[in-house]
Amino acid sequence: MRVEYVKMKFFCESVFINAGFNDESALLASKVLLSADMRGVDSHGIARLAGYLRLIRAGRINPNPNIQCVHETFTTATLDADKAIGLISAPFAMQLAIEKARIYGTGWVAVQNSNHFGIAGYHAMLAAEKNMIGIALTNASPLVAPTFSVERMLGTNPIAIAIPAGKEAPFVLDMATTTAANGKLENLQRSHQKAPGGWIQDADGKESTDPEEVSKGGALLPLGGKREQGSHKGYGLGAMVDILSGVLSGANFGPWVPPFVAFLNPSDNPVGKGIGHFFGAMRVDAFQPLEEFQQRMDLWLKTFRNAKPISENQKVIVPGDPERMFEELYKNEGFPINEVVWKNLIEISKEWNVELPTLL
Amino acid sequence: MRVEYVKMKFFCESVFINAGFNDESALLASKVLLSADMRGVDSHGIARLAGYLRLIRAGRINPNPNIQCVHETFTTATLDADKAIGLISAPFAMQLAIEKARIYGTGWVAVQNSNHFGIAGYHAMLAAEKNMIGIALTNASPLVAPTFSVERMLGTNPIAIAIPAGKEAPFVLDMATTTAANGKLENLQRSHQKAPGGWIQDADGKESTDPEEVSKGGALLPLGGKREQGSHKGYGLGAMVDILSGVLSGANFGPWVPPFVAFLNPSDNPVGKGIGHFFGAMRVDAFQPLEEFQQRMDLWLKTFRNAKPISENQKVIVPGDPERMFEELYKNEGFPINEVVWKNLIEISKEWNVELPTLL
Repeated sequence: MRVEYVKMKFFCESVFINAGFNDESALLASKVLLSADMRGVDSHGIARLAGYLRLIRAGRINPNPNIQCVHETFTTATLDADKAIGLISAPFAMQLAIEKARIYGTGWVAVQNSNHFGIAGYHAMLAAEKNMIGIALTNASPLVAPTFSVERMLGTNPIAIAIPAGKEAPFVLDMATTTAANGKLENLQRSHQKAPGGWIQDADGKESTDPEEVSKGGALLPLGGKREQGSHKGYGLGAMVDILSGVLSGANFGPWVPPFVAFLNPSDNPVGKGIGHFFGAMRVDAFQPLEEFQQRMDLWLKTFRNAKPISENQKVIVPGDPERMFEELYKNEGFPINEVVWKNLIEISKEWNVELPTLL
Repeated sequence: MRVEYVKMKFFCESVFINAGFNDESALLASKVLLSADMRGVDSHGIARLAGYLRLIRAGRINPNPNIQCVHETFTTATLDADKAIGLISAPFAMQLAIEKARIYGTGWVAVQNSNHFGIAGYHAMLAAEKNMIGIALTNASPLVAPTFSVERMLGTNPIAIAIPAGKEAPFVLDMATTTAANGKLENLQRSHQKAPGGWIQDADGKESTDPEEVSKGGALLPLGGKREQGSHKGYGLGAMVDILSGVLSGANFGPWVPPFVAFLNPSDNPVGKGIGHFFGAMRVDAFQPLEEFQQRMDLWLKTFRNAKPISENQKVIVPGDPERMFEELYKNEGFPINEVVWKNLIEISKEWNVELPTLL
C-alpha cells in the first residue's frame, strides 16, 4: 500500500484546518509530519496524526498558539510555545536561531510549553540549507531507565545534527539516545517478534527480549544497553538532552514530561510547561571560509563513504544517506503506508470530514 | 603505590620547564594533566607524560607556542594553536569561549594545529565554574572502525559537557564515543584479560574479545558495539566530533589525524594542521534567570540520584559523580600510581634531571 506525497499533504492540511489551524500552520505542520514518512521514519509520520488530533481534542495542543519570547540575549532566546504543536514551534524556533546566527555567528533557542515535534532531523536540516550547522534536541515521555535503575526517567530524547557540504550530500545524524527507537519496538510488538539483546529490560531491571515488557513496567535501555557495553554513556547523552531541552527552557523534565498519548494525563505537579526543545545554528563561515569548508567536508564525506567495507555487499554509510535514499525513491513511487495506519486514517477522514486520497 | 598531588604537580612543572615551557604554561599543563589522575581517569594523566615529552623531543609539540586567532565573529573564533600541547591550548580556547559568552550569551571556539588535551571534562568544567554550560570535543588518532567497515577512521573522539547547579554537585558528562575508552583496553592488555563483547573487532571486522587484536589490524568499536545494538549511533557521534573538531577548525580529520605516539609519523599528505578541538560556553542566564535554573537543576540532580535502583547495593549515578568521589578521596590520600608508570617516571626523572617525589 502506497500513497502519493502531494495528495497526502493536502489531506493533512485539510484535517489540520478543520482542527482549527490557520492555512500556513496547516501547511507547515503537514510538511514536517510527512517528511518522516518520506525519509523512511514511518513511526514519526502520518501514523502519529491520530495522536496529535486527540491532543488537540483534549485541549493539550493549541491550534492557534501565540508563540512568545520570554528571555533573550544577542545569541539566545527562550520561547513559550503556548501549547503549540511541535511541528510548528520547532521550525519557528530554528528560524530564530538562524536569524541570530546570521548576525552573531551562532544562535541558540530553548522552547518550553511545546508538544512533540516530529523528526528532529527536519529542523536541523533547516539550518544546513543556509550553510549553517543545525542542531535539534527534544525531551519526550519517560520510557527509558537510567543505568542501574528500574524507573523510567527519560524519553528516547533524540539528537539531530545536520552539517552542510559542497557537492556531496550533507551529513544528517538523527538518532534516539536509546539502543532502539520506540517505533522499532512498536513494530516488533505488532509482528510478535523478539527484541535483540540490549534494547529493553523488565520491571525488575533484568534484560529481556520480550517487547511487551515495556508495557508491563519495563523500560527501554539507553544506547549501549548494558553497563559493560557503555549504557551509562547513552544514559548520559539522554540526560544531557533532557537538561538542555527541559531544565534550561522551563519545560517539564525527566519523569514529569507529559505523555504523548492523550489517555494518560500529565502530572498533577508539573515542574514546568509542556515538553521542551533546544535548537542551535552555527554559520560555517563563522569558523572558516565557506568554500574551504565545503571542499574539506566533501573530502570527509567521500572518504567515509569509500571506507573499506567488511563485506562487499554492504557499503559504509554516512548518517543521513539511508533517509535520503528513501526520499528519492518515495518522491516518484509514493511512500508506503501500513494497514493499521490506513484504517486509522479512514476514521480520521470520517471524523474530520476530509476525503482520503486514493492509494497508488 | 600512592603519591601526593602537590608533590607530583611540582615534579611535572619542573619537567615541563626543563622541556622549554615557561612557568605559567608548566603550571597549567601540570594541573590539567593531573586532574585526570585525581578524577580516576589514570589513562589520561601522568601515565601520558612520557608520550608528551617524546612529542616535544620530536618537534611535534612546541613548548613556546604563539596561539593566534585566524578567523572570528562576535560569538565564534578559530585558533591556530601553533603546535601547542593541548593541555594549554584547550583552556586558552575555552577562556575565549567564556569571554564571548559573557558578552553575547554564548561563545564557540574551534582549534587547529593542536595536540592531545588530556581529559575533556576538565575544559568543560571551566565554563561550569562561571555558571555556564561548557562543552569540549576533540578528535584523536584513528583507532575506531565505522559500522560496516574494517578501516580505522575515527579516534575515540570524546564528548564532554558540564552543567552547573545550585547546591547539588554539577552534571559532568565526559565520555569516549566508543563502547570503551582506549585506556580500558590497555588495562586489559597489561593484565592479559579478555574484553567484553562489543568493544573490539579483528582485522576482518569480526567481533573479538582479544584485546591484542587492535594492535593486529583490528579496531575499537563505536558505542553500541554491533549494528543491532546501535553502533551506527556511536559512529555518528564520533563522526560529529571529528567534523566539528577537525573539518571545521582546519585541523586534520578522520584517518589523517596524527598519532599520539611519537614513533609513528604523521601523514605525508595532511589535510590540515595537527589535531583539532571544539569548545562551547553558554551562559545559563542567557536562557533563564540563574537562580531559577539552579533550583530546577538541583531538582533534576536529586531526582536522578534518588531514582529507584535495580539493586540496593548500587545507587543510580549522575555523570560526574564517580570522578568527584575519586577527587575527594585522592585529595587526602594521594592518588594511586601504577608500577609500569612509576618505572617510566624514574626514567623521566633521570632524563630531565628532576627529583621524583617519594611515594606515600
